[in-house]
Amino acid sequence: MGGDNAPGIVIAGAEIARERFPHVRFIFYGDERRIKPMLSKLEALSECSEIHHTDVSVTAEDKPGQALRNGRESSMRLAINAVKEGNASAIVSAGNTGALMALAKFVLITLPGIDRPAIASFFPTLRSESVMLDLGANVSCDSENLVQFALMGNVFARTVLGVNNPTMGLLNVGSEEMKGNDAVREASAILKLNKLPGHFLGFIEGHDITKGTADVIVTDGFSGNVALKAIEGTVKLYSHFLRQSFKASLLARIGYLLSRPALRALKYRLDPRRYNGAILMGLNGVCVKSHGGTDSFGFANAISVAIDMVTNGTIEKMQHDFASLKHPPSASDISND
Amino acid sequence: MGGDNAPGIVIAGAEIARERFPHVRFIFYGDERRIKPMLSKLEALSECSEIHHTDVSVTAEDKPGQALRNGRESSMRLAINAVKEGNASAIVSAGNTGALMALAKFVLITLPGIDRPAIASFFPTLRSESVMLDLGANVSCDSENLVQFALMGNVFARTVLGVNNPTMGLLNVGSEEMKGNDAVREASAILKLNKLPGHFLGFIEGHDITKGTADVIVTDGFSGNVALKAIEGTVKLYSHFLRQSFKASLLARIGYLLSRPALRALKYRLDPRRYNGAILMGLNGVCVKSHGGTDSFGFANAISVAIDMVTNGTIEKMQHDFASLKHPPSASDISND
Repeated sequence: MGGDNAPGIVIAGAEIARERFPHVRFIFYGDERRIKPMLSKLEALSECSEIHHTDVSVTAEDKPGQALRNGRESSMRLAINAVKEGNASAIVSAGNTGALMALAKFVLITLPGIDRPAIASFFPTLRSESVMLDLGANVSCDSENLVQFALMGNVFARTVLGVNNPTMGLLNVGSEEMKGNDAVREASAILKLNKLPGHFLGFIEGHDITKGTADVIVTDGFSGNVALKAIEGTVKLYSHFLRQSFKASLLARIGYLLSRPALRALKYRLDPRRYNGAILMGLNGVCVKSHGGTDSFGFANAISVAIDMVTNGTIEKMQHDFASLKHPPSASDISND
Repeated sequence: MGGDNAPGIVIAGAEIARERFPHVRFIFYGDERRIKPMLSKLEALSECSEIHHTDVSVTAEDKPGQALRNGRESSMRLAINAVKEGNASAIVSAGNTGALMALAKFVLITLPGIDRPAIASFFPTLRSESVMLDLGANVSCDSENLVQFALMGNVFARTVLGVNNPTMGLLNVGSEEMKGNDAVREASAILKLNKLPGHFLGFIEGHDITKGTADVIVTDGFSGNVALKAIEGTVKLYSHFLRQSFKASLLARIGYLLSRPALRALKYRLDPRRYNGAILMGLNGVCVKSHGGTDSFGFANAISVAIDMVTNGTIEKMQHDFASLKHPPSASDISND
């Protein structure tokens, strides 16, 4: 029931995902009176779906605390409960991010060794694709949070992006050791001890994000959120300037017509709907947040991320990786060095 | 003597600036044996220039502390001294940023009411141009630093960008009041008291930077640095994808040839050299940092920023604005509210 166009785009998105993954089954949590008429028009989807009715839904305005206290029968809460109880393998929601994080954290709980969940997302780079976290769940982070994010991102890059030995970079204002704040310097020192899985590159900078310098970009939720939105804004700025350029002269208009198929491919390449689906990472369950304003194609991609995580055992591998650390990496490790 | 191609691009940049501003005089601080042969080839520039010889120069590797202790005869230090002593109206350097900040702060001192200088830069947006600060001088900032940055940026927008009543936005992870860390929430509360010059919009987000939502974008040096570099990286990513698209088919290649003049205009519009010149803001003197890897055109633009600041009295207006505040805006103001 969440997002700007629910439940329409959720059902239409599931229909697209069903075509991609014919073995998947869906449970729609929400208002049956609105869901049923839409679903009944899609025969194949109806056959692999059920509706779990509830009158309550979390609104975009609800504070996380409100959603926690009052939302026990909300569609969001019931869907998360289904993951907890093993009735569903994953939850995908286009609803209120803060509420989703609060409810998922409360119900699913973080995996052992992980103090705080992070929001992660992947996007295109000059090289291929990278995953960045945290994107806004934690506005301030200490070094141990950052180290855990690096390990979480590492598992995601291996299991979903298919990178064998992912590189990890810590976002900073420069690449030299003395740069940055205490948290990033300490996190870098811990990650350099090299007892951890993955290949740590050290500090990377803002331009390295889209350059693809690292498969996993680790940062606090404040900088990560600002950086991701700045990147999205810049793609919009460039697209706008490009459209204006093609209107600048008759020749340019003709040039545009000739290049249109190629430019469509470019648009597709940078289409944010293709990268829709932020992962609430570190929880004992797959929870994917779709952009609230997306369409059915975007929502289908968020579903696909969830399916990829389930199919590739992201949670199990994360659990394994964190359990196999002799002790959780912490600031005390560096002083022993 | 600083940057990747000194003193060549510095002298060639001054020549371009001289054509734009024929009344300006130049003093080149550095190795006369290298500067003189280059300068003597440019007659008009030679006539309005002098060389102040010194054998010492700050290197890219020098730590700020080293530059402070050992660099008393360095070209950078002597050039800053010239501003302090009134022998020059501004200094422009393509050298070591940390050293420049440390020396400029030590010699020129911050203006009364300003605790910490910030690095500021302006860039194109969907609407026009905006200035953002801090871009890396202060990796962590308290609310009072942020408020001072807002007022500094406000003066810059008025005097250099020519905006009458600049809008100011505080970068955050969301627009709601409860979002973010203590520093941004407190800074927002102080700026909302509305006793300060300029029009405060409240919180803005990463995508607002290039959208041009605010004339002045205020943030701490960590997020600002990451955001600016992420934007630069995204422009590169888009340009690269665009070039690849035009090579995708014969039709696209022809389309490219026809649109080339329009695309050149686009390239010019986003050319980082046009926005070269970061301002060390809050000091009692004009100090502009050029990108170390720029060319003569880029360096000329950094010189132009310095000239604009001098011509439009940015420092004097900043001094006036901060002096006219009854008392420096601080966190204690909000508790009285």
